[in-house]
Order: sequence, then C-alpha cells, then structure tokens
Amino acid sequence: MKTYNLCLLGFGNVGRALARLLAVKSEEMRVGFGVEWKITGVASRRLGWAVAPEGFDVEKLLAGEVESRVSPAPQGVRAWLAAAGADVMFETTSLEPHTGQPAVGHVRAALEAGAHAVTANKGAVVHGYEELSQLARARGRKFLFEATVADCLPVFSMFRESLPAARLLSFRAVLNSTTTVIIEEIERGRNFQEGVERAQLMGITETDPSYDVDGWDAAVKVCALATVLMREPLKLGEVEREGVRHLDAMRVRAAREEGRPYRLVSRAWRDGGGGKLRGSVRPEQLEQGDPFAALGGSSLAIRFALDVLPGLTIAAHEPNLQSTAYGLLADFINAARGDERGEGR
Amino acid sequence: MKTYNLCLLGFGNVGRALARLLAVKSEEMRVGFGVEWKITGVASRRLGWAVAPEGFDVEKLLAGEVESRVSPAPQGVRAWLAAAGADVMFETTSLEPHTGQPAVGHVRAALEAGAHAVTANKGAVVHGYEELSQLARARGRKFLFEATVADCLPVFSMFRESLPAARLLSFRAVLNSTTTVIIEEIERGRNFQEGVERAQLMGITETDPSYDVDGWDAAVKVCALATVLMREPLKLGEVEREGVRHLDAMRVRAAREEGRPYRLVSRAWRDGGGGKLRGSVRPEQLEQGDPFAALGGSSLAIRFALDVLPGLTIAAHEPNLQSTAYGLLADFINAARGDERGEGR
Repeated sequence: MKTYNLCLLGFGNVGRALARLLAVKSEEMRVGFGVEWKITGVASRRLGWAVAPEGFDVEKLLAGEVESRVSPAPQGVRAWLAAAGADVMFETTSLEPHTGQPAVGHVRAALEAGAHAVTANKGAVVHGYEELSQLARARGRKFLFEATVADCLPVFSMFRESLPAARLLSFRAVLNSTTTVIIEEIERGRNFQEGVERAQLMGITETDPSYDVDGWDAAVKVCALATVLMREPLKLGEVEREGVRHLDAMRVRAAREEGRPYRLVSRAWRDGGGGKLRGSVRPEQLEQGDPFAALGGSSLAIRFALDVLPGLTIAAHEPNLQSTAYGLLADFINAARGDERGEGR
Repeated sequence: MKTYNLCLLGFGNVGRALARLLAVKSEEMRVGFGVEWKITGVASRRLGWAVAPEGFDVEKLLAGEVESRVSPAPQGVRAWLAAAGADVMFETTSLEPHTGQPAVGHVRAALEAGAHAVTANKGAVVHGYEELSQLARARGRKFLFEATVADCLPVFSMFRESLPAARLLSFRAVLNSTTTVIIEEIERGRNFQEGVERAQLMGITETDPSYDVDGWDAAVKVCALATVLMREPLKLGEVEREGVRHLDAMRVRAAREEGRPYRLVSRAWRDGGGGKLRGSVRPEQLEQGDPFAALGGSSLAIRFALDVLPGLTIAAHEPNLQSTAYGLLADFINAARGDERGEGR
C-alpha cells in the first residue's frame, strides 16, 4: 500500500469535483489498486500556494476552508511542490490556447520535482507534448492528460493500451459542447446570445466563452489528438478554423427540420491519404442518419478511421463535472499502476 | 527482441485473416514492441495437428500448403502445443454455446503448457472465465479474449486499462450483425430466408446460423460482458432470449419508415439498480433519434452506463475479418508487453 501526496493546481469546478471524487472512490482505490492518498497542496489565484503536509480535510476544502499549515506559505509552484512533498500534481488551470502557459510550466515543474503530472489543460499537450513527454521519460514519471479532450472518454489510453500497432488514418468529431448547446438553442428559436448564456449556466464553457464560440477549444483538441495519436505535431495555426458566431439562424432551423442538424465538426486527415497532416474545425451540416445528430447537450463523440477497422466511434453522453474529474482520477490510478510495476525505476 | 512461437487452433476465415495480418504488421510489431514471431503450429479438423518448429511460410499457409514437418504428427492439443513449443495459442474454433467446448479445454491446455491463450471463442469466456483466469494467474500467463464480443472493439481492455475504479451499472447493445442484416433485408422488401443468405454471403454468420437467428450468439456475448465487466457470473439460461425468426415483416417495414427500426437488442442490468444481475436479448423497436438506428450491416455498438459517466458508447462501423483478426493481434501484443514488464515471473 502506497500513500500518494496529491497537489491540486487550480481549484475551480474541476479541481473541486476531483477532490469530491477522490473521497467517494477512496475505498475502491485502496482495495482494488493498493493506493491511498492525501491532498497536501492546493493552489489557485484566490487561495495562493496552500500546503498541509499531513493532508487537508476534504470536507473543509470543499467548504472553502483552506488554511495553509506552512508559514510563510511557499511562493511559486516549485517551492509549493517541494513543501507539499508532491507525488502527483493535478493541473486544472484554465486554457490559454496560444502558448499553453502557465500549464506547460506547471507540468515541467512537477516532473522536475519528481511528481507525476496529470493535466486537464489541453494547452499543455499542444504546446508541450514532445518536451514534457521526453522529460517524463527521463525522470521516470508520467505525463498524462486523458481529461483534456473529451472529459473521461478514454481516448489517449485506449490507443496506448488497447489499440497497439493500429494506425489512425483520420478522425471526425464533435469536441466542443458549448457550440452544440448554442446550435440547439437556435434550433429552438432562441438567439446566439441566449445559447451562450445557457451553456454558461450548464457550466460547460471555457472561462472565456469566445474560445468555444470561435472554435479555439475544438482546434486545440484537434491538435492534441493529431499530435499524440497520429504522431506528428499539428500546430494551432495549421488548423482551418471557423466558429459558430455567424451561423444563419434560419438555416440552422431548416437543417434541423431536415434531420441534418449543424454541429461544430472537427477533423484531421492526411492529404491524399498519406501526405501532409491537416485539421479543420467548422460548422457542418451532418449527413442524414449520422449518429452524431443524436448527440445533444454536453455529449461528445469521435469517429476514428483505422487501418484495421473502417470506423471506431467513441461517445460520451451528457458527461458532467464528475466525468471530467474521473478522467484525472483514471490517469492517477494508471500512474500508480506504473509505479507498482516498477516503471521508471 | 523476443521471438514468439505462435500456434493457431482453428484455421478458418478468422485464423487465416490473423496469419495475413501478422505478416502485414510484422515490421510495426518489431520496431514498436520488440516482438518477432513465427507460426509453429496450425491445427484444424481438415489439417490435423500440423507443426513446423522452424516456422511455417505464411504465404504457403494461406495458399493451403500446410505440411507438418514433425512426423508422425502429434495427436491432440497437448502433444501439438509441446511439439510446436507454443508461446501463444490463438483459439478460433466455432462456437458451441451450451458448453463452450472444445474451446475451454484448448485454452486450459495452452495455459498448462505455459503459453498465453488468446481466443475469439466467447464460449470459453462464458463457460470458463473464472477457472481459466485463475489458471492463467497461477501460471503467470495471460488469458485474453478481446475478439469474442465485438471483433476488435476494445471492450475488455478498455475497462481493464482505461476505466479503473469505474463501476459498470448496465449496458445496452447491438451485438449480432447477422440479425441486423436480416432485419435490413426485410425492411427492403425481402424475406427472412433471403436475409439469412445475404448474411452468409457477407461471411458474418456463425457456422450454424440458427445461433445468430435465435439469439444464442448475442446471449453468449451478454453473459461474457456481464461476467467480466460487472464481475458476477451470468449464465446463459438466465438471459431472457427471443430471436428474430418470428418478426412480422409488415411491422419491420413500418418501423423503419417511422425512423425507429427494429434491432436485436442485448441488455444487462441489475434489478432495482443494485440487485440481481439480469440479461435479455430480444428484437426491440429503437427510440426516435437512437444512434443505434444509424448502424447497419456488420456494425456493432455498446452503450455502457457507468457510475462516473451517464453514457459511454463504443461502436465498430462495418468491421471486417481483418478487424476480428486485429482483436487477436492486440491481445498478443498486450501479452508480450506483460512479458516485457516481467509480469508472471
């Protein structure tokens, strides 16, 4: 039985859902995987760099009573990780699509401090995948990011563990739920702004909803998926990107009545099958009978074309905050299983 | 680099597709996973127990030139495995739903001979899961069966590797493609028998198509999924089972016109959420907008309800023989990765 010191960098909706899920699942983790844990560090803009070497009380954390037991509180991520004796850092700060900062720096600091780094921040994957993966290998730690693209849909781990020696040829996906909700609201006779507000009420938008609306969130996800699964870096600037801001409401409603609704569709493929890697994000009217048409609300789906299977679809129906938190938790358990197997020693 | 001696028990469509795929993927397996292989044993009713300690020529095998280099040829599975120095046995004999034999016996023999056992035969899972898994653990070998339920859809490995500490509450699935093809043919104005013939032409039926038509194939898959993923044995006799033989053609056509087609739907759930484990296989008219309605031909899909995610769907679109073979190949690579990590020593 190993006890892991966990550090939560970012303590918004996702960080809090993770703390709650850790508490719910602690018995299953202990019995099923020989893993115990305590939260020894919590950091956010509001809380500063709080540390409790003997572990925070989760109930109090969730009630907002975060009192650092180390004084003066450490300043900066490296001092914080050291004071908290971090074994695993969970990074859940909000997306900055163009640089991936400060997430990339946080993950680097965690790996250099000898901790596993688990992130929900896709910027860290797009802007740091190569560097951070190499660093993780060099330090014998894990850099994991299952929750970045589709909440807890096991995309990266599915390819890593379940689809060895299969080649990903292309994919087509609905990767942004805010735009689905906006389109659905327009279909129901409301306007664009009401759609944005509904998505915000559901708690599914990025901190800055224009990242969703203008296709940045989806484009970053395309880059993350392509870079990792098609094994070639795809840069944000290389993704053709068109958001949903200028969708014509009449056309959106007519499309729904035809049974061929609009969705913000993300794609990656190679020119001529084996050539240059390409990506696109744009509103597309789905074909008649497309299974994506049945997915509404916060649901996400990806259809992969593989050399060994014409189509493999994986979809999350109405994932919630607990689902995103579970993506992080699964990464943590997988890192612990690696430790158990002696990987990285 | 380790060279594996592979033994193919059953050399019908799936066994041959596996031999072909092994040849296609040999470079990727060598470079990506440090795995080399030769086929040292091939057995079928027609071929007997053929052995070539230095490896068969795959091209000749596929051309039907199978000449045992050991004479007299061994009689029976144990002598054959020993003569072939089996490291991995692939079991692809045809389904016998009520006893799982002779597949259970073959897998047992392989594990006792110190080989990994990879099977496409769901009978071995339903009738032997507990015994064979324990035997595999005791011998430090793997008993893997990804291809049994949905060709190469990574169902078992997804739960094992990607969804740790997630609880499966229930599932609903289209697990038999022969019945989908029959229903589609009836929708197009043909009759039941023409539907069966079309499925046979596609090469997707069980050796005895009544196993498909009367729901046995689907029921065995429900048992396999429930037993492994819901961690409680579900027996074939406990699954309510109704096939497609008596579907009314007029109703089938009317249902399609409504956009709510019939499918042979498989389910497992617990009474009252946490009570007795139950299963059913029966023709059901799908709800309006059900993504399953968009899946035709040989496509298969499963929708899981998890404690951490309301719905997770995984679907294979038009899988082919290569896809089934890939399910076996992925199991082999995963067994080899376990060896590489020193599991079972």
